[in-house]
Amino acid sequence: MELDYQFSAVSDRLVKSEIREILKWTRKPGVISFGGGLPDASLFPVKDIARITNQVLEEKGYLALQYGPTHGEAEMLDALVDHMNAYDDPATTEEVCITSSSQQGIDLISMLFLDEGSVIVIEKPSYMGGIQTFRRCGADMRGVPIDEDGMDMNALREVLDKLEQEGKKPSFIYTIPDFQNPTGISMSLERRKELLQIARDRGLLIVEDSPYRELSFSGEVLPSIWKLSEGKGVIMLKTFSKMLFPGMRMGWILAHPELIEKFVTLKQSVDLCTPSFNQLIMATFLKEGRMKLAIENAIACYGPKRDAMLAAMEREMPGELWWSKPKGGMFLWVRLPENVDAKDIFMKAIKNNVAYVIGRPFHCDNSGSNTLRLNYSFPSIEQINEGIARLGKTIKEIMG
Amino acid sequence: MELDYQFSAVSDRLVKSEIREILKWTRKPGVISFGGGLPDASLFPVKDIARITNQVLEEKGYLALQYGPTHGEAEMLDALVDHMNAYDDPATTEEVCITSSSQQGIDLISMLFLDEGSVIVIEKPSYMGGIQTFRRCGADMRGVPIDEDGMDMNALREVLDKLEQEGKKPSFIYTIPDFQNPTGISMSLERRKELLQIARDRGLLIVEDSPYRELSFSGEVLPSIWKLSEGKGVIMLKTFSKMLFPGMRMGWILAHPELIEKFVTLKQSVDLCTPSFNQLIMATFLKEGRMKLAIENAIACYGPKRDAMLAAMEREMPGELWWSKPKGGMFLWVRLPENVDAKDIFMKAIKNNVAYVIGRPFHCDNSGSNTLRLNYSFPSIEQINEGIARLGKTIKEIMG
Repeated sequence: MELDYQFSAVSDRLVKSEIREILKWTRKPGVISFGGGLPDASLFPVKDIARITNQVLEEKGYLALQYGPTHGEAEMLDALVDHMNAYDDPATTEEVCITSSSQQGIDLISMLFLDEGSVIVIEKPSYMGGIQTFRRCGADMRGVPIDEDGMDMNALREVLDKLEQEGKKPSFIYTIPDFQNPTGISMSLERRKELLQIARDRGLLIVEDSPYRELSFSGEVLPSIWKLSEGKGVIMLKTFSKMLFPGMRMGWILAHPELIEKFVTLKQSVDLCTPSFNQLIMATFLKEGRMKLAIENAIACYGPKRDAMLAAMEREMPGELWWSKPKGGMFLWVRLPENVDAKDIFMKAIKNNVAYVIGRPFHCDNSGSNTLRLNYSFPSIEQINEGIARLGKTIKEIMG
Repeated sequence: MELDYQFSAVSDRLVKSEIREILKWTRKPGVISFGGGLPDASLFPVKDIARITNQVLEEKGYLALQYGPTHGEAEMLDALVDHMNAYDDPATTEEVCITSSSQQGIDLISMLFLDEGSVIVIEKPSYMGGIQTFRRCGADMRGVPIDEDGMDMNALREVLDKLEQEGKKPSFIYTIPDFQNPTGISMSLERRKELLQIARDRGLLIVEDSPYRELSFSGEVLPSIWKLSEGKGVIMLKTFSKMLFPGMRMGWILAHPELIEKFVTLKQSVDLCTPSFNQLIMATFLKEGRMKLAIENAIACYGPKRDAMLAAMEREMPGELWWSKPKGGMFLWVRLPENVDAKDIFMKAIKNNVAYVIGRPFHCDNSGSNTLRLNYSFPSIEQINEGIARLGKTIKEIMG
C-alpha cells in the first residue's frame, strides 16, 4: 500500500519564510546586504571564549559535557540574575528558565497559551520569527500599528474593545518595547505605563520581547515593562544573540515562578535541557564581568554605523520616503510611497548589487508591501555608504 | 481586573514527570543510584574537546559564534553523512537535519504528524521522554508489548487490525530497535523485516529512535530499519548523547528530503538553528576520526559494567524476578511478581541507600507497576556490586 503521511494541522500552517528565500539572492558576489539581523563578527570575544572554555573543561568537564537540569545550571541562573539586577531588571532564580535561544522562549510561550484560533495582540510590524511561531500555533493575530513612540495606545484600546464585542479574550499582548525589530523604534515611558495599566484593567498578560534593550546608543534606557510591573502579569524574553553573539543559542525567560514551572515541564518535552557546555562558558563570561565591556564595545561599533546610515539616507534617498531614527538596536525601517511595492524594487536592487528585506512578512495581516528593513550592524561603514548610494539610485530609478 | 491566564489545551496535558520527582531522592548522600540514563563522565574526551574548541575559535570564530543555517552547518552535515556511512547507515546531506538534541527530533516529528487524538503505535514499555512529548500533543497511544526479540509482531497486527475496525490510521509506529530504553532489548533481524513489511502493506510510517545503536558489546550490529527500508517510509533519530556525551545537546533526523524540508521550516519556529559553536566542534571531532575511538572506549567501559550487574543480579535477587540480558546500551529491565509495586519498594530502597526508576511511566497505558529500570553506565563496578546487594536485600525484605 502506498505510504500516506498523516500530517497534522500544524503542518498545514507551515509557510516557508519568504524572506529566507529572498536572502538567498544576497549571496550573489558583490552584493552589499542590509538583509540579515546579524551582529558584527569583529566584536566576538573569541580569545576570551577560548580561554574560558579551556578553564570550564579542565575544572568541570564532567559537568559541562553531561546532562543538566531543565531549569538551567545553578551557576548560570545565579550569573543571569546578577546581570539582570545590574541592568535594572530585578529577578530571582525562581523567575528564570534558561532557553536554547529566545526563539525557544517564544515557542514555549506559544505552546502554553495558544490553541488554534487563540487571539493575540501584536505590534504591526513585529518580529517575523514570532509571527512564524504564532502562525504555526494557529493564532488569530490582531495588529496594532506603531508610531514613533511605539504601540499606538488608542488603536490598542480599539482592538481590545472589538475583541470584547466578539466575546474573545487575547492570550497575551506581544511587544518589543526597546529598539524594536524591524523598526528600531522604542516605546515611550508614558506608553509603557499606559500599556501596563490597560493590561491590568482588562486582566491581560503582556509578553515583552527584549533582545535589543542593552544596545542603547544615547545611554538612555527606559524602565522595562517587566520592571514597571514588578513581575506581575508580564513575561520577559531575553537573549545574548544581539548584545554579544548568537552562536551559543542561549536565552532566558523571566516570569512568575508558577509559570516558570510550566515552562520547565514543557521544555523537558522539547529538548530536555540547554547545553551545560554553553551555559557554563557563558556563566564564567558573565561572572568575570566581561558582558558589560562587550555591550559597551557593541554600542561603540553600532552607534557610528547607525549615524552613517542615517547620513547616507539623507544624502541618497528621494524626499517621498520616510524612515525611522533608531536610538539603539540594529535596524532602520523605511516606508516607500503607498503605491510602491518593496518586492518590485528588490530584484532591481540585486542587479545594482544591494539587498534588504521586504517589510510585508513583518506584518501579521500581510499589509506593509511599501515597507522595507535595513540592517546596519553587520555591514561596514564603507559598505553602508556605498550600499545606500546604490539603493537610493535604484529607488529613484523606479520612482522615476 | 484579576489576571486570568488563557492556557492552551497543551497546558492541560502537561504532567510533571513522576520520575524526575523521584530522582530528587537519589541525591540523598550515600545513595547508590541506578536511576538516571547518564553516560560515565570518565569517558568524556575533555582534552580533545578543549583543543578542538581552541582551533575552531581561532580559525573560524566569526562563523562559530554567528547565526547558522537552520538545516545545519555544511561541515557538520558532511561529517555526519560520513559517520552514518561508516556505521552502515547510508544517507545523503539532503536526508539530514541537525537537531538540538534527539528530543528535539521527537518534538519536530510530533508537531508535523500529531493532532489531538492522532493515533500512534508504541512499544510497551518505551522511552519516557517520547511518551511525554506524544502526550503533550494529545496523541492516542496504542501499546504493543515487547518480548526478548523486541516488538511482538502478532500483537502489532492485532493493534493495527483493531485500529482499522475503528476507522483510524496511525500517524506512525515508534520503535527503539537497538538496546531499547528502558529494557535493553534489541529487535531481531526477522522482526525488523517483518515490521517493515507490515508497515509497507498498510502504508504506515515508522519512526526509528536509535540512540544506543553504536553501543553493542558483542560486536553484532543488526541492520537498522532505516537501512533495510532504503530510506523509504522510515524516519531515524540519532544523537551523540549516549555514544559520546550529552552536554552538546546535538542530534540529527534522517528522513526523505521532502520531510527534511518540513522539519527545517518547523525548526525555524522552534530555535532558528542549533549552535554553530557546538556543530563546528563536533564536526572537527568527527573528521579527526575520534568518534570511532570514543565508541570503542564506551563499549570497553559499559560491557564489563553490564557483566557485573548481571552477575550481581544472579547473586542477590530472589528467584521470582525476571530481568533482561542486554547485549548493549545502558539499561537492565526488571519484572517483579505481579502483585509487587516497584513504587512501594522505592522508599525502602532509599532507606537502604539504593535507587532506581519505577517502570510505570515508561508505559503509555500506565501499566507496568511491577517493573523497574536499572542503569549500569553511570555507577562504578564497585557501586554496582554494593548497590545490587542493597537492592536484593530490600526486595527480599518486602517479598518476605
